[in-house]
Amino acid sequence: MPDTLAERFCGSSARARLDVAIAQLTAHFRDRVSTSSAHCEQHGRGEGQLRVYPPDAVVWPETTAEVSFIASVCAREKVPLIAFGAGTSLEGHVCAPYGGICVDLSRMNQILAVHAEDAECIVQCGVTREQLNVHLRDTGLYFPVDPGANATIGGMVATRASGTTTLHYGATAQNVRALEVVLANGNTIRCGTRAIKSSAGYDLVRIFVGSEGTLGIVTEVTLRLHPRLEATGCITCAFPSVREAVDAAIELVQSGMQLLRIEFLDEVQMRACNLYSNLELPEKPTLFIESTGSATSVGEQVERTKEIVLAHGALNPDSATTPEQRARLWRARHQAYYATRAMRPGWNCITSDVCVPISQLADAVSATRQDIDAAGLFAPILGHVGDGNFHVIFMYDPAVDAARQAIDALYDRMIARALAAGGTCTGEHGIGLGKRAKLVEESGEGAMTLMRQLKQAWDPDGILNPGKIFE
Amino acid sequence: MPDTLAERFCGSSARARLDVAIAQLTAHFRDRVSTSSAHCEQHGRGEGQLRVYPPDAVVWPETTAEVSFIASVCAREKVPLIAFGAGTSLEGHVCAPYGGICVDLSRMNQILAVHAEDAECIVQCGVTREQLNVHLRDTGLYFPVDPGANATIGGMVATRASGTTTLHYGATAQNVRALEVVLANGNTIRCGTRAIKSSAGYDLVRIFVGSEGTLGIVTEVTLRLHPRLEATGCITCAFPSVREAVDAAIELVQSGMQLLRIEFLDEVQMRACNLYSNLELPEKPTLFIESTGSATSVGEQVERTKEIVLAHGALNPDSATTPEQRARLWRARHQAYYATRAMRPGWNCITSDVCVPISQLADAVSATRQDIDAAGLFAPILGHVGDGNFHVIFMYDPAVDAARQAIDALYDRMIARALAAGGTCTGEHGIGLGKRAKLVEESGEGAMTLMRQLKQAWDPDGILNPGKIFE
Repeated sequence: MPDTLAERFCGSSARARLDVAIAQLTAHFRDRVSTSSAHCEQHGRGEGQLRVYPPDAVVWPETTAEVSFIASVCAREKVPLIAFGAGTSLEGHVCAPYGGICVDLSRMNQILAVHAEDAECIVQCGVTREQLNVHLRDTGLYFPVDPGANATIGGMVATRASGTTTLHYGATAQNVRALEVVLANGNTIRCGTRAIKSSAGYDLVRIFVGSEGTLGIVTEVTLRLHPRLEATGCITCAFPSVREAVDAAIELVQSGMQLLRIEFLDEVQMRACNLYSNLELPEKPTLFIESTGSATSVGEQVERTKEIVLAHGALNPDSATTPEQRARLWRARHQAYYATRAMRPGWNCITSDVCVPISQLADAVSATRQDIDAAGLFAPILGHVGDGNFHVIFMYDPAVDAARQAIDALYDRMIARALAAGGTCTGEHGIGLGKRAKLVEESGEGAMTLMRQLKQAWDPDGILNPGKIFE
Repeated sequence: MPDTLAERFCGSSARARLDVAIAQLTAHFRDRVSTSSAHCEQHGRGEGQLRVYPPDAVVWPETTAEVSFIASVCAREKVPLIAFGAGTSLEGHVCAPYGGICVDLSRMNQILAVHAEDAECIVQCGVTREQLNVHLRDTGLYFPVDPGANATIGGMVATRASGTTTLHYGATAQNVRALEVVLANGNTIRCGTRAIKSSAGYDLVRIFVGSEGTLGIVTEVTLRLHPRLEATGCITCAFPSVREAVDAAIELVQSGMQLLRIEFLDEVQMRACNLYSNLELPEKPTLFIESTGSATSVGEQVERTKEIVLAHGALNPDSATTPEQRARLWRARHQAYYATRAMRPGWNCITSDVCVPISQLADAVSATRQDIDAAGLFAPILGHVGDGNFHVIFMYDPAVDAARQAIDALYDRMIARALAAGGTCTGEHGIGLGKRAKLVEESGEGAMTLMRQLKQAWDPDGILNPGKIFE
């Protein structure tokens, strides 16, 4: 007997169960539950998704016990339960294709403890990255993982987020020590410890990191922090071609210098950034490189970096040494997305994401650029090239059907090339709704079976974020 | 109806199934199967365990397809299947308390590929750490994770091993990109990619890392390598007390210097090392500190390290700068275990392992030393203090029953203190047989349920390494 998610969650008996669940939640949470279409629509999509799939109700819990209560109600009534943080996800993680209850975790925004001696803090899931770093300002410590958006820590854990500083500090997975999680049955568990490492049993922490709300709802996170180092150095340099830029990046990684960031922007992206941020940088494939450490070691790294990029044909290695210059350049990098959007007002945008072994990166980026140009699309490329991770920001006019189709075909090829090169269909954005078929392609049926068995074991009724990761 | 592992695997029908399995394996592997008591005894224990639990047969496969064949036979006949690498495990992981088939993976020792540009290699599971580093000698790269023993890479993956360089390079988990694994049903899957990072689905790689052969047999490993850096600096320094040594270590970690190793040896361990390695170091709580990087940055780190340790009362910070001096000191550190054993010929030894937040380390080590002295035991303490991880080498005369009991009681207290301090019952040795009750204490019933459900989902007949991790 087929049991599709639609049959399970969208029939008339499902509707009746949903009504019971909403009534129970309303009795308990009163004005912290809403079924208004405004609230539901607002919670029906993340940033990277056009179509809205609204939940049937939104609840705003303030404690883990409240999340546990919500999960118990949903478990009893077999109703979908979708976690929502800052809504910055790019792959549709937070939408509700089968309706159900959205848990908006933004009020769980307490920083519970900072243990400076252990370079560690404990936060509720709804704390945002920027909020945390403002709070830590006087401790000399910070949480360096930087996906661009001001995501919640819970959301970053759920999508296994990374970003510009992963080269140096690792991604979210490497910076989580322990979690508190509410399970599909409403039980609350803790996993991990405050110790730096452990060999005690299965690594439950790393199972929940990246599970996209399909195995549990992360309510509390113990994070590893890092000391803010004394000095920072920054180099920008343009190259004659993508290949030379990427080859320079590879050699920088191989040098063992442990640079903080190596970011790549192609000529189209540079043009957008110049216009948006009022800069006059060369409109060529460009690396933004940042180092951190003691003043001496930063000085040495900047010199060595210059040597390496010059040997790869860098046109104008420029080390911006004042904090103001540095801030201006990095602001331009961080605003690349908005700069691109500003080039085509009213157009839609698809932010793609693949990651390949760095030896394959020049080929992957060059082939993608050729594809884009051949299709006549406007689509800058940028990436965390030290990690082999790059994004194309595909822009298209929503009035032109063919544009969207051309992008889909091109993105398919981009992913096929990444997989053929030994890479992954997503370096940091996750699977969500949009990449479920790609996950199967990447993982193979054997690995997919293990993932489905795990999901089935921990969430037998499939109520946690149904339709995500798995089709 | 109770279904204990003994009932499942040790009745007469189990014996009959075992005989069928051995016959099928013998028909296939001929002289690469042995049921001789010498071979079975040899494979019935690791290093840290006295009692021998022999398997009923040992098989030496040479390919993944052969491991898969063995697993299929064991799955069909519901016979225990125990993976064996170098046999260096300290927690009884490789023994066969319910009999069954031991898969000796030592002939799967091929280094399949080295991708220098991606700082990566692909090895069969039976390759040892030292074999790999000899092979990599001319590439400028190495695999830095160093648990002391010359373990196999498969064994290090299975126990989530770490060691002296984890401070700088992370533990095994952070240095594995992809795995090939033979499952309980004989199927072979691959997980992970050659990309540096991925957000594609559940992190199967990190589930297998540390699963101690209870979820699958790792047959192939894609490892991250690291460039050998230009220079190395080493400082040894004695302190008046444990607390001063550990406080210095904490400040070194907090400095953000990214030192390579910070090792602690207490006064008892130093005495043993002096005698064994013919050194004349002060017999006081001592730190061995190593830095790596460019010549300039190592010089700078050594100077800064000296300042920090002096501020914490270091008696004689001594920077051994010649490679010979360095090698001599580190040999002494690496031989600490043998030095300790040499102090009490004929005695037995229990190597303990806990890990705590570093802020709690001085208390944990001091309380342990007091306990040891109060019990009149001979037991040096050493540790990877940069990680908060320490070991007591408990020595005892096998003729004295009370000694073993005193050690058990003391080790129980040591673990209880580690858990109360927010730490773990094992930083790097794993659960195996000996720490199953401690895992429950550390994890709580909720997390244990998740682990048991995962085991049940992936190995429903419980044939993979039965009796390990779970009681």
